Amino acid sequence: MTQLENGSVPDSYPQLGGIVADLSNLRRASQQRRYRNGRPPELPSRDATIEIIDGLVASLYPRHFGPPELTIASTDGFVLYTLDKSLRALQEQIRRELQLAANGSDDGHTDFRPRAHEITSAFAAALPEVRALLDTDIRAAYEGDPAAKSLDEIVFSYPGLAAILRYRLAHRLYGLGAPTLARLVSEVAHSATGIDIHPGAEIGEGFFIDHGTGVVIGETAVIGKNVRLYQAVTLGAKRFELDENGALVKGGARHPIIEDDVVIYAGATVLGRITIGRGSVIGGNVWLTHSVPPGSNITQAKPRSESFDDGGGI
Amino acid sequence: MTQLENGSVPDSYPQLGGIVADLSNLRRASQQRRYRNGRPPELPSRDATIEIIDGLVASLYPRHFGPPELTIASTDGFVLYTLDKSLRALQEQIRRELQLAANGSDDGHTDFRPRAHEITSAFAAALPEVRALLDTDIRAAYEGDPAAKSLDEIVFSYPGLAAILRYRLAHRLYGLGAPTLARLVSEVAHSATGIDIHPGAEIGEGFFIDHGTGVVIGETAVIGKNVRLYQAVTLGAKRFELDENGALVKGGARHPIIEDDVVIYAGATVLGRITIGRGSVIGGNVWLTHSVPPGSNITQAKPRSESFDDGGGI
Amino acid sequence: MTQLENGSVPDSYPQLGGIVADLSNLRRASQQRRYRNGRPPELPSRDATIEIIDGLVASLYPRHFGPPELTIASTDGFVLYTLDKSLRALQEQIRRELQLAANGSDDGHTDFRPRAHEITSAFAAALPEVRALLDTDIRAAYEGDPAAKSLDEIVFSYPGLAAILRYRLAHRLYGLGAPTLARLVSEVAHSATGIDIHPGAEIGEGFFIDHGTGVVIGETAVIGKNVRLYQAVTLGAKRFELDENGALVKGGARHPIIEDDVVIYAGATVLGRITIGRGSVIGGNVWLTHSVPPGSNITQAKPRSESFDDGGGI
Amino acid sequence: MTQLENGSVPDSYPQLGGIVADLSNLRRASQQRRYRNGRPPELPSRDATIEIIDGLVASLYPRHFGPPELTIASTDGFVLYTLDKSLRALQEQIRRELQLAANGSDDGHTDFRPRAHEITSAFAAALPEVRALLDTDIRAAYEGDPAAKSLDEIVFSYPGLAAILRYRLAHRLYGLGAPTLARLVSEVAHSATGIDIHPGAEIGEGFFIDHGTGVVIGETAVIGKNVRLYQAVTLGAKRFELDENGALVKGGARHPIIEDDVVIYAGATVLGRITIGRGSVIGGNVWLTHSVPPGSNITQAKPRSESFDDGGGI
Amino acid sequence: MTQLENGSVPDSYPQLGGIVADLSNLRRASQQRRYRNGRPPELPSRDATIEIIDGLVASLYPRHFGPPELTIASTDGFVLYTLDKSLRALQEQIRRELQLAANGSDDGHTDFRPRAHEITSAFAAALPEVRALLDTDIRAAYEGDPAAKSLDEIVFSYPGLAAILRYRLAHRLYGLGAPTLARLVSEVAHSATGIDIHPGAEIGEGFFIDHGTGVVIGETAVIGKNVRLYQAVTLGAKRFELDENGALVKGGARHPIIEDDVVIYAGATVLGRITIGRGSVIGGNVWLTHSVPPGSNITQAKPRSESFDDGGGI
Amino acid sequence: MTQLENGSVPDSYPQLGGIVADLSNLRRASQQRRYRNGRPPELPSRDATIEIIDGLVASLYPRHFGPPELTIASTDGFVLYTLDKSLRALQEQIRRELQLAANGSDDGHTDFRPRAHEITSAFAAALPEVRALLDTDIRAAYEGDPAAKSLDEIVFSYPGLAAILRYRLAHRLYGLGAPTLARLVSEVAHSATGIDIHPGAEIGEGFFIDHGTGVVIGETAVIGKNVRLYQAVTLGAKRFELDENGALVKGGARHPIIEDDVVIYAGATVLGRITIGRGSVIGGNVWLTHSVPPGSNITQAKPRSESFDDGGGI
Repeated sequence: MTQLENGSVPDSYPQLGGIVADLSNLRRASQQRRYRNGRPPELPSRDATIEIIDGLVASLYPRHFGPPELTIASTDGFVLYTLDKSLRALQEQIRRELQLAANGSDDGHTDFRPRAHEITSAFAAALPEVRALLDTDIRAAYEGDPAAKSLDEIVFSYPGLAAILRYRLAHRLYGLGAPTLARLVSEVAHSATGIDIHPGAEIGEGFFIDHGTGVVIGETAVIGKNVRLYQAVTLGAKRFELDENGALVKGGARHPIIEDDVVIYAGATVLGRITIGRGSVIGGNVWLTHSVPPGSNITQAKPRSESFDDGGGI
Repeated sequence: MTQLENGSVPDSYPQLGGIVADLSNLRRASQQRRYRNGRPPELPSRDATIEIIDGLVASLYPRHFGPPELTIASTDGFVLYTLDKSLRALQEQIRRELQLAANGSDDGHTDFRPRAHEITSAFAAALPEVRALLDTDIRAAYEGDPAAKSLDEIVFSYPGLAAILRYRLAHRLYGLGAPTLARLVSEVAHSATGIDIHPGAEIGEGFFIDHGTGVVIGETAVIGKNVRLYQAVTLGAKRFELDENGALVKGGARHPIIEDDVVIYAGATVLGRITIGRGSVIGGNVWLTHSVPPGSNITQAKPRSESFDDGGGI
Repeated sequence: MTQLENGSVPDSYPQLGGIVADLSNLRRASQQRRYRNGRPPELPSRDATIEIIDGLVASLYPRHFGPPELTIASTDGFVLYTLDKSLRALQEQIRRELQLAANGSDDGHTDFRPRAHEITSAFAAALPEVRALLDTDIRAAYEGDPAAKSLDEIVFSYPGLAAILRYRLAHRLYGLGAPTLARLVSEVAHSATGIDIHPGAEIGEGFFIDHGTGVVIGETAVIGKNVRLYQAVTLGAKRFELDENGALVKGGARHPIIEDDVVIYAGATVLGRITIGRGSVIGGNVWLTHSVPPGSNITQAKPRSESFDDGGGI
Repeated sequence: MTQLENGSVPDSYPQLGGIVADLSNLRRASQQRRYRNGRPPELPSRDATIEIIDGLVASLYPRHFGPPELTIASTDGFVLYTLDKSLRALQEQIRRELQLAANGSDDGHTDFRPRAHEITSAFAAALPEVRALLDTDIRAAYEGDPAAKSLDEIVFSYPGLAAILRYRLAHRLYGLGAPTLARLVSEVAHSATGIDIHPGAEIGEGFFIDHGTGVVIGETAVIGKNVRLYQAVTLGAKRFELDENGALVKGGARHPIIEDDVVIYAGATVLGRITIGRGSVIGGNVWLTHSVPPGSNITQAKPRSESFDDGGGI
Repeated sequence: MTQLENGSVPDSYPQLGGIVADLSNLRRASQQRRYRNGRPPELPSRDATIEIIDGLVASLYPRHFGPPELTIASTDGFVLYTLDKSLRALQEQIRRELQLAANGSDDGHTDFRPRAHEITSAFAAALPEVRALLDTDIRAAYEGDPAAKSLDEIVFSYPGLAAILRYRLAHRLYGLGAPTLARLVSEVAHSATGIDIHPGAEIGEGFFIDHGTGVVIGETAVIGKNVRLYQAVTLGAKRFELDENGALVKGGARHPIIEDDVVIYAGATVLGRITIGRGSVIGGNVWLTHSVPPGSNITQAKPRSESFDDGGGI
Repeated sequence: MTQLENGSVPDSYPQLGGIVADLSNLRRASQQRRYRNGRPPELPSRDATIEIIDGLVASLYPRHFGPPELTIASTDGFVLYTLDKSLRALQEQIRRELQLAANGSDDGHTDFRPRAHEITSAFAAALPEVRALLDTDIRAAYEGDPAAKSLDEIVFSYPGLAAILRYRLAHRLYGLGAPTLARLVSEVAHSATGIDIHPGAEIGEGFFIDHGTGVVIGETAVIGKNVRLYQAVTLGAKRFELDENGALVKGGARHPIIEDDVVIYAGATVLGRITIGRGSVIGGNVWLTHSVPPGSNITQAKPRSESFDDGGGI
């Protein structure tokens, strides 16, 4: 709270009117370029999306993420009420995405609500399957981490599970035709956990990420069952291909296929549409750009020990 | 707020009842597997734990993390009130952890409050020592970072200090028999800073982490005095040993010992129960799996410069 | 809420008085060392700074970060009101930084408000330019990421843009003489995105960071136009130089110069006052401590494939 | 937060399912009676209405009811933004009222938004006139109350002004065809001040109510300029007339006309379509059911002093 | 936020320590007088009680007082969840009241939870009946008020209904043995509406209070069916009887009996255990201390009109 | 949240700019009239004042109005911290009142902080005495109300006590030279309880108001010890005297003196500087404008019972 007493203290910004006008002009110019034929469409709301996802997460695991006073008797009531509320709110966000996507090719009069309702209904129908998949992930974490004390602990404190939970929801949205919203969901998880899983990736059951900070999994990655990753693993694309005009070639499978039961240790970088064969182990910090057969063990070159010359301070 | 007008807009999810029932069955099955003999125990609460830790942090550094209107006269009052409130709330969370841990081996009628009170009291008694240790960490940051302008700036803006502060609290909880709660505290810090310090690690005075994103310090790591780490340093275990049945061998010292006055630059990976001798300097991105004597300087192999072939896009 | 019934439950901490006194003594001792001549100065407030930055961000991109109900008609009103409020609050925080910085060399009676007002006014005047620069960054993200669906999506969901937005604000504060506040702003962005850009760095238009977790850009780095970075890239200093007394040599250009149109892939580490020539491409995980000419392509040494010996578990 | 430990404590309500079903049946029966042809219409929202009125009040008197940090420069911005937001929200509430009112006579497919927009626009256009009228009320309070210290004090602390302010807004809504919303506004003021002014009443400039608790002013009351009332004054109807079927005769002028410059002291009851002539003074607790000419002075019969027989305890 | 700069501004209260000690002594003395044998019992919480009542009200009328996004499908879920939560919280408040009441006569070791559970269960079982009664009250308001536009309007805006709703809940608590909590509920309604109905009063179906400010209904009042009251009506006791020691004689029927179909106009005062016969009409401001037969019409003495002598200003 | 789809829905208010300009002109004109020589002074803040009073009330009765988790050990800490915070905030509000009061007679450069500090310090010093007085009021309520179950119940649920508590604080502010703030405090209590006690009134120990709605106590009233009032009692002035110019004669004792041990029943109106002698009982609805000797019993004239002619509907 500004407390400005006495005339002698400077406390106004006479140029403010001009700044506001300049910003207004910049906005207007930018919008005119993009939305020539009318006013800008409504955007999906980050805050609303976070609230929706929190509602869905609480519906899937009410004991861990619902309100503290839930009892066995009231849990179904809570889930029914919360799911219904979250799905309606989701439908509105999907409608916005559809309208935003139609911008330019559309006359602005299409009612996207019926399509948004279809997507939302299909999403809702998939929730029990999502929960069943997540239960395999929780079990995988319990079995893969010597420090895990209980399944419950994993649900309420492991960042890997937090990221996978949101990924599995985002992946359904992505598949049903709401990729922008799906991306928003995965970015919210990315911000909280440092784990960046593109909602387009395909990931099988029993997936476990330990520590997780810096993990990046690309859009067309395919991950089998019971795969385990550590922090800072990248499943990325090789450098992007450009077409004859120097523009990016979009789409196309460009990220790795990780078969069942693979373990990839911290800091490994796996790039391009290569296949890591079933049961392989990729060592920490390995840089890998070619396929390896099932059962491979890949490790990094040994470092040198030598005299001081440079370091890594900032 | 959903605004649904006119009958023509689809806005209900007739299958919702079935979805809620499916989710209910999944929950019930999962709980029955784990809590055969009764209803599930209460879980420690993430929100409550965050509030407790914020209260403890404000009690340790009221000028930096307490309410803005504190004065010298009122600070002790604030600390007394806040500590008392935070300790009581902590005691309840510890009680829940004890009860959760006893699940299965316990008939469900033990009153864990007396034990929770003992742990909480011991934790409280250690707070002045924790604050004294943290003061050495703050000083280390000031001396180690050429950009640091004041001790105060370090306290209110350095992520390394934020992580160490919570680690030092979590470490006490871990040592006193509340490892799940300790883990929750460290995960909260991990989410905010990208620094993942296991509460079981032993860390001496004057510890400094610069930048910090991606740092991982394992459960049995031992770190001496005046050690300095940069971002993305891992102090990890080698691949887990399995017993004859293929199950993880749990426990046992499996992370490095870092002696006094060591500096480890960004991205270095130090694995296994090895010892980095006093005063050593480990260069950036180094991969180290064997002990080095005091005063060592370790750097990475030189990179090649060569023609374009692959990259690291996603 | 603690519910303690009946006398048999332990619920008080008799030693609390002593703990509070110990903490009080530690605080007093610490403050006496630093503020011998009076009471400690007010600190900049992290919460207030976050609110200020949120207000500025909403003023620059009201459609994306302002309240949901804004219309074309009311947006200028919102921007005027929000900017005015945010600037006043910023001025107060700048005043606190100036006073904190003067501590020791000052008699405690200087009124820093006029100087804080000058800085704030200059900062305000730069906002349209900041917005224009950010528009180039948004366009660069759109052109650089094959997954980007619209400019709007980048603004509301890309962590790279979130970090650059706050960096560009912090950089102005830094240049105008409020480096501590600038640092606080960049640490808030760091916590949310895992991207750590020092506000002192100079960064040209059209800057794009993809994924971003673990990126570190040092204080004296200079980055040209249309540069693209991926996650975990470090633009750091070599090990710090010490003077004859073993103290850090502060100041001086010690971070890389990245010329226009350079791309640096994930995990690359570029250290020291070296120059990466225009249009160069630095491959993933490369470790680079010497300058390279324009148009260079640098890649990492190939990894070995070999039998199992160690890994990277924690 | 309920903390229920151990199986011995009763903490569930087995009959809850049946209660919920009973309540559900009661709701369904009630709605079926009233909304035979479909689902119930949306109701105007009390919370939304309170927020709208608070926004309008802050737009009319931003220095007193706006946020604390407003400056001359930013006030117009605040008013523009707040008015626009409040009017849009008001339009939606008016739409709901129109739809609720049309229930039964309507097929449910009418779009009431255009009409709601017209009403809202007309309401907006009247705001400067409302503010001008309120300024006369404030002045009247200042001149009428020997205890008033400043005009500002009246605005921020007098309950009479708070009630009149909301009445003047509600009266416009009433006149424009939103009587239910108008009533809601006046009930919110009634709850806060104990002053119950029906939005249908006509009240001239310079109106002042002192203390105010218990004042009731009926729907068809007409009050001239510069009238002053004290607490517990009723301007009511005589007993309602019934038609030949015993049903209430609705509508029709049934409350008093109070001419200019009248003062009515505390507790007076004035009933029926009578006229209190200009400049009259009605004494405290007077019961008046016939017209009085201009300049009248009416007082109550004298009480008796006598021995104790009964009282007024509860 | 106090912003105190420079040493010259007075901003501390040196005598604060002494004031705190004085207040502490006053508290301790007061508590010692009352709770000689131990520490003071927990008090029922006003905030918790308000939240409980809001939850119960929303459970009874979810369309009017529940969250805005409820649908037919989700309403039962909401009611189940909200009722369960509210009942548990209520049980805890009842436990506190029982313990508070037992203070002195109790050794402090009784577990009042089983009894609190019984009361709460009985209260829950009565809710459908309460709702059915309230529906008659709503209909009575609709039929009794010429200004009422719909049943919905009455539910969300009439203060009389708000007070009766809370009275009917409080009355059940009172009857089940939680009179202090019941009183708290009725005082919360009193504060919001100015209507003070003691929870002990017996009130039949179809009860309507118009305007309502100042209505007081005493503990032993008995009100029949279809009774209508206006503002400022008192149904009180005669002056309290004292026993031979001058102490109040507590208990005993001391308030009026109002038979079916009675109307009592504004400001009427009805005192003592008298009976107002069925179908009577009591005029405004009447003072009545004796029974009247069915069908009576009672009005006030006529006022005098005379010259100015005194008034009612404050 | 407005959701406006499709171009056909009206959703903007083109005349908004003009309305904002009109309101701006009205504001400017009004301020120019009053603050010719500069910008308007800051106003005391209603929200801040409410928070201050809540803090003071919690400091006086921490067990009843403090946070739920207080223990004997932490209460003094809470009181110290809360008092200090509340007093500082109070000092700022007092400063504003002083500056507002000086407007016109002052050059705008006076620093009112020292005087505000003096007043605040004196106010603080009086708090123990205020608490001691309130304890007598609580006891009086307990003894005077046959329905009171415990002293605690009176503190947390009786509106009379809530009003007296705030009156006793406001009265100190009034006496120390902050009458506007004092008035604000009493209006906040008035809004919550319907009891309007002017902070200038002098009220002795053991004061009890039952029910309370509609009670009005004027500025110069003097009330002795152990006085009891019921709802709707007015202790007012006769009609205001005018001077030869027709302006109100301000100041001067114009409200009643109520001696010790008087009881005044509901609805009684006592006007002018008269004296109600010690131990008198004033019956309900009595209208009294002359002094009565000690021990008087005053009751109202008997009502007539007669045929129906008019009523009190609205």
